[in-house]
Amino acid sequence: MKPFNVAIAGLGTVGGGAVALLQKNAALIEKRAQRPVRIVALSARDKTKDRGLDLSGIAWVDDPCALAQREDVDVVCELIGGTDGKAAELCTATLTAGKSLVTANKALLAARGGALAALAQKHGGALMFEAAVAGGIPAIKVVRESLAGNSLSCVQGILNGTCNYILTRMEAEGLDFEPVLRDAQKLGYAEADPSADIDGHDTAHKLAVLSALAFGCPPEASRPVVEGIRRLTQADIRYARELGFRIKLLGVARYDVAQGLEQWVAPCLVPVEAALAKVDGVLNAVQLEGDAVGPLALIGRGAGAMATASSVVGDLVDLARGIRPQPWGQAVDGLSALPPKDETAEGASWYIRLQVADKVGVLADIASILRDRAISIATILQRGEAAPEGGVVPVIIVTHHAPKAAITEAVAGLAALPDSGERPLCLRIEG
Amino acid sequence: MKPFNVAIAGLGTVGGGAVALLQKNAALIEKRAQRPVRIVALSARDKTKDRGLDLSGIAWVDDPCALAQREDVDVVCELIGGTDGKAAELCTATLTAGKSLVTANKALLAARGGALAALAQKHGGALMFEAAVAGGIPAIKVVRESLAGNSLSCVQGILNGTCNYILTRMEAEGLDFEPVLRDAQKLGYAEADPSADIDGHDTAHKLAVLSALAFGCPPEASRPVVEGIRRLTQADIRYARELGFRIKLLGVARYDVAQGLEQWVAPCLVPVEAALAKVDGVLNAVQLEGDAVGPLALIGRGAGAMATASSVVGDLVDLARGIRPQPWGQAVDGLSALPPKDETAEGASWYIRLQVADKVGVLADIASILRDRAISIATILQRGEAAPEGGVVPVIIVTHHAPKAAITEAVAGLAALPDSGERPLCLRIEG
Repeated sequence: MKPFNVAIAGLGTVGGGAVALLQKNAALIEKRAQRPVRIVALSARDKTKDRGLDLSGIAWVDDPCALAQREDVDVVCELIGGTDGKAAELCTATLTAGKSLVTANKALLAARGGALAALAQKHGGALMFEAAVAGGIPAIKVVRESLAGNSLSCVQGILNGTCNYILTRMEAEGLDFEPVLRDAQKLGYAEADPSADIDGHDTAHKLAVLSALAFGCPPEASRPVVEGIRRLTQADIRYARELGFRIKLLGVARYDVAQGLEQWVAPCLVPVEAALAKVDGVLNAVQLEGDAVGPLALIGRGAGAMATASSVVGDLVDLARGIRPQPWGQAVDGLSALPPKDETAEGASWYIRLQVADKVGVLADIASILRDRAISIATILQRGEAAPEGGVVPVIIVTHHAPKAAITEAVAGLAALPDSGERPLCLRIEG
Repeated sequence: MKPFNVAIAGLGTVGGGAVALLQKNAALIEKRAQRPVRIVALSARDKTKDRGLDLSGIAWVDDPCALAQREDVDVVCELIGGTDGKAAELCTATLTAGKSLVTANKALLAARGGALAALAQKHGGALMFEAAVAGGIPAIKVVRESLAGNSLSCVQGILNGTCNYILTRMEAEGLDFEPVLRDAQKLGYAEADPSADIDGHDTAHKLAVLSALAFGCPPEASRPVVEGIRRLTQADIRYARELGFRIKLLGVARYDVAQGLEQWVAPCLVPVEAALAKVDGVLNAVQLEGDAVGPLALIGRGAGAMATASSVVGDLVDLARGIRPQPWGQAVDGLSALPPKDETAEGASWYIRLQVADKVGVLADIASILRDRAISIATILQRGEAAPEGGVVPVIIVTHHAPKAAITEAVAGLAALPDSGERPLCLRIEG
C-alpha cells in the first residue's frame, strides 16, 4: 500500500525521539498501520549538529514552513514549540494546505486550539496532539474517544514533569527549592528560563486542552487561576509529611451545570496514601471522572524523548490507518465557553504557613483572626525552637473545610499582624 | 446526518447499562458522534421482565440472530455471553452479514477471536470489544492505537472484579474464602457457578485478548497456566500482610524474542507499597510496558453496569464516527503464534505455606529439602502456637529468587514429608 509520508519540524528532545522511534520500530509500525510510515522531510535550526540520528535519504529544508508545501508530505509534525514565530506559522500553513498536523505544542493549543481545529475542518486535514499533554500517557485519545459516552465531571492530575521532579527531589533529599532547580537545569530536566514549568503555566495549558475535550469549552476560553511552586520551602515539605501529606502541583478542572467550571493550578497537600501521592519524578497522572465509567486513572511518563515520541507515533499510525478524529471530539462550532464557578465559594481544608514574632499573645491573635471568619482549626504546629535572628518563628495551621473567600480574608489578616514575616503561604488540601 | 442504528442482544447487567447510558447521554453522544446513535432493535430472554428501562419505540425480536438480518441495523451489540449457543451464533451471523459487531464476550474472543476478525475482514464489518477486558478501563484502545509505535514487552494486571472483591473483603473483614464467596453470590458480585471467575479462567480469557493485541499472537493460541483463588485462606492473607504483602490474582503476559511468551494467571504476593496492592474491590488495573512509552498503568472500575456500558458506548461512537480499526491492531493473517517461554525457567521469590507435624526435626527436614534444590530461605515463620487437633501446625517460608522448576520439585518433596497435612500452597511474589 502507498507509504504514509511524514515531515518533522524540530529535532529537539521530542523531534529526535520521534525520528528514532519511527526508525527503530519501522517494521512493527508498517504491520500495524498496514503501510510504511516514512520520514521524507525534516527541518531544524542547525543542519550540521550531530544528534546521533541517521538522517540519510531524508530531505532537509531550512524553512520549516516549506514542509507544508511539499507534494510528497501527508502530515507535518510540529515539534518546535512556542506560541509565535515559526511554530505557529508552520501549523497554520500545514492546515491551510489541507495537510494533517501532529503537534506537541500545548501552549499553542491553549492559545489557538479552536482556531486551528476550525482551519483543519475547513481544509480537510486532521489535527492531532496526544503528545501535548502528559507525555506518553494517552489522555487525549481516552477522553476524546474511549469516554465519548460519558458526561465528564472532573479531569485533573499531575501534568508537569519538571515540577514533579523538583518536588520529589526536595522531599527525597531534604533540599530547598533553589538548589534543586539549579541542578535540574544542569541535568536538562528544567529549562534555562524555567518559568513556564515552575510557575504553573505549562500545567494550565495542558489543563485547558483537557477541559476542552472533557467539557466542550474552547481551549482559548480557559482561564485557570495559576499558582506555581516557587514559594515552597523544605520546611513545607517536612511539615506536610509530618501531617500525613505530600505536596504535588495539581491541575484541576471540575464542571457541573449548576456551579459552572472550576479550573485551577496550584501546589496542594495530598494524603500520603492517595494514588497521586505516589506519582514521583517524571511520572505524570491524569484522573478522570465520568458519570458512567466512574473514576479512571492513567499513570505514566510525562516527559522524555521516547515516551513523548510514543504519543507522536500513535497519532501518526492513526492517520496512516485513515482515522481522522475531530480534534476536540466534536465539531468546532459545537464548543462553547462555560460559566466559571464562583472561585471564592470553592471549599477545602487549607494548610497555612506563617512567620510570626516569637512574642506573648501571637497565637491568640492568630486564633481570633480565624475565628472571626468562622474558620475552624484542625491542627496547629508551633515548635519550641529557639527563634532565629529577627525573632520570627514558623506557625503551621491546618483548617477544617472552609470557603476560599474566608481563607483569603483570613490570610490577609494574618499578613497584617505586627511583626509578621514573609507573606503567609496558603495551600489547598486535596483528596 | 443519518442516524447510526444499534441493535442490542442481551439485557443483563451490561446490556441494560448500555441501553440506559445511550438514552441518558443521547444529546451528548449525538454531538460527539455528529449523528444520532439510536437503539432500533432489542432481543433478550424475557420480554415481560421489568428492567426499569424505557424500551418504547424499540423493535423486540425473540431470536437474537434475527438482529443480524435487519436492514435497519448498522451494528449489533452481543451482550449475551458464553462461548456457544446464541452468543456465538449471533456474532457469526452479524459479521457474515457485513454488519459491525460490538461484544463484551471475552470467552468467545479467547476461543475464536482470530476467526471472528477474519470474518469481519472478509465481509467488511468491524469487530470491537473494549468492554470485554477490565470493564470501563480503555485497555483495548490504548494497546491497539495509542501504543502502536511501541514494541511491547509486558501486559499484566488485576483483571477480575469478583476475585478482587473477594480478596479485598477477606483482608478487610478477616473472613475466610467460603463465607465471602457465598456473600458475594448473594450480593450479585459472584455468579451461582463462580468457577469462571474464581478459578482464573475469566482472567485467562482477558489475558489472551490483551496478549493478542500487544504481541500479535492469535488469541486462540494463548495457553496461560491458570491457578485460581480457592485455596487461599484467611491465614495466607494474614501471613502475607505480616510479611509486607497483599495477595492479588494477577494475569501476566511477558514477551521477549529470546525467551518467548510467558503467560500465567495466579494469586501472587504483591508488596503493600506497590501500585497493584492498592487496587481494591471492583477496581481493575492494567499495566503495560513498551520500549518507547516505558511503564503505563490504567486503573478503573473493572465491572458494573455503567462502567462496562461506558466501553460499549465508546466503541459505538467510534463506529458512528466512521472509525473501523483492525480488531487485533493488524491484518488477521499477520498474527502468529509465539513460542512459549520455558515455564520451569521462570524465576521468582516464593511464598510456601506448609502444614507439618509438630515434632522434633521437622524444620531440619524442610530446610534440607530446600537446600538440596539450592533454594535459599529469606524468611521462615513458625509460631509457638499450641498445635490444634491432629498435631499439625502451619509453617510459612519465603524464598529468595529461585527457578520455578526447583520450587516445583521442592514443594513435591515437602508434600511427601511424613505427617504433612494438606498439599503445600506455593505463591509467587511479584514486584
